Amino acid sequence: MTGRSYERDGAEIYRRSFETIREEADLTQVPGDLEKLAVRVVHSCGMVDVVADLRFSAGAGRAGRAALAAGAPILADAHMVADGVTRSRLPAGNDVICTLGDPQVAELASARATTRSAAAVDLWSARLDGAVVAVGNAPTALWRLLELLDSGAPRPALILGFPVGFVGAAESKQALVEAAHGVPYVTVLGRRGGSAMAAAAVNALATERE
Amino acid sequence: MTGRSYERDGAEIYRRSFETIREEADLTQVPGDLEKLAVRVVHSCGMVDVVADLRFSAGAGRAGRAALAAGAPILADAHMVADGVTRSRLPAGNDVICTLGDPQVAELASARATTRSAAAVDLWSARLDGAVVAVGNAPTALWRLLELLDSGAPRPALILGFPVGFVGAAESKQALVEAAHGVPYVTVLGRRGGSAMAAAAVNALATERE
Repeated sequence: MTGRSYERDGAEIYRRSFETIREEADLTQVPGDLEKLAVRVVHSCGMVDVVADLRFSAGAGRAGRAALAAGAPILADAHMVADGVTRSRLPAGNDVICTLGDPQVAELASARATTRSAAAVDLWSARLDGAVVAVGNAPTALWRLLELLDSGAPRPALILGFPVGFVGAAESKQALVEAAHGVPYVTVLGRRGGSAMAAAAVNALATERE
Repeated sequence: MTGRSYERDGAEIYRRSFETIREEADLTQVPGDLEKLAVRVVHSCGMVDVVADLRFSAGAGRAGRAALAAGAPILADAHMVADGVTRSRLPAGNDVICTLGDPQVAELASARATTRSAAAVDLWSARLDGAVVAVGNAPTALWRLLELLDSGAPRPALILGFPVGFVGAAESKQALVEAAHGVPYVTVLGRRGGSAMAAAAVNALATERE
């Protein structure tokens, strides 16, 4: 039996995907330094209409690119986010850090009466200054980061806020838009989000290569 | 400064999430053995309307549960899918296998003029019989699996078909619905999908616990 008929060329799949997205998505409100990020976020979820829910601070793309080029670590709230970052795209062999599996996390979460995802954010403190933060799963991770910023914690270079779900996702992202303490951010309003979107955002800023 | 006001109890976040999904999603067309799977898939992506695009063969949920209880391996097309499977939910310490990082994959893909994701599926053959397959990223992985089944390969117990994107995702999932060779399946039509949905589907079948 001969094989089925489908596109088998990985580079061509990418090219046609990005071409389709640029044909169908309304990117008119997206600034130039976030155009590739918006395209990759759409690519990761299959939904061109997600562009309408993107929110960002001016210069967020530029800030993220500069930080990554300068070797900033990437702080991810979930292993799936860290896993989705394409290491070969990173410009400076940047560390990709997820503290969720740290042996201290369970005890810390219990002691502070919070989620493991939030407790894991407390373990970022030594690397937070100038980092690129990618939240793709837990609203409580984004909430906890905002609390740390409220308290004067070191400021990351960029917050990519893509927690997903039905409890706290929309609220935490709205809070990011309203009070990011001047930290550059990119987020998607509402319940949608996820590790694939967060990783796609990092991958878009890591290199100009598509 | 006191903290912000948000739900910090992980169990309560799950409970309220599932409650909201069951209030808002139209689950009337979902058979009983897939109700929890549908709820978890919605939970993973934040979209209740994805239920309308779910397609499945009769008894697919039962088949998947029985396979996992009997110790079937889980074959994932992407590391993010494998990573999203909650090991503590698995009923029999099931192996979770992703062959994408196998050193043979790059050469195999090049020799066969296909993607790495499709080549990685060829490395599943020894474990395919009775396995639970979870495709959450690459349409070419699902296409390749269908080709192997066309050629009389050993049959998995269940195919969870959730590849995502703009080239081949909708087409490969439609092909799964039309010619799964009698292999039980669950899929979501169209461009939507992803590693979080695929992992959520596995997690739902792994245990009755929510």
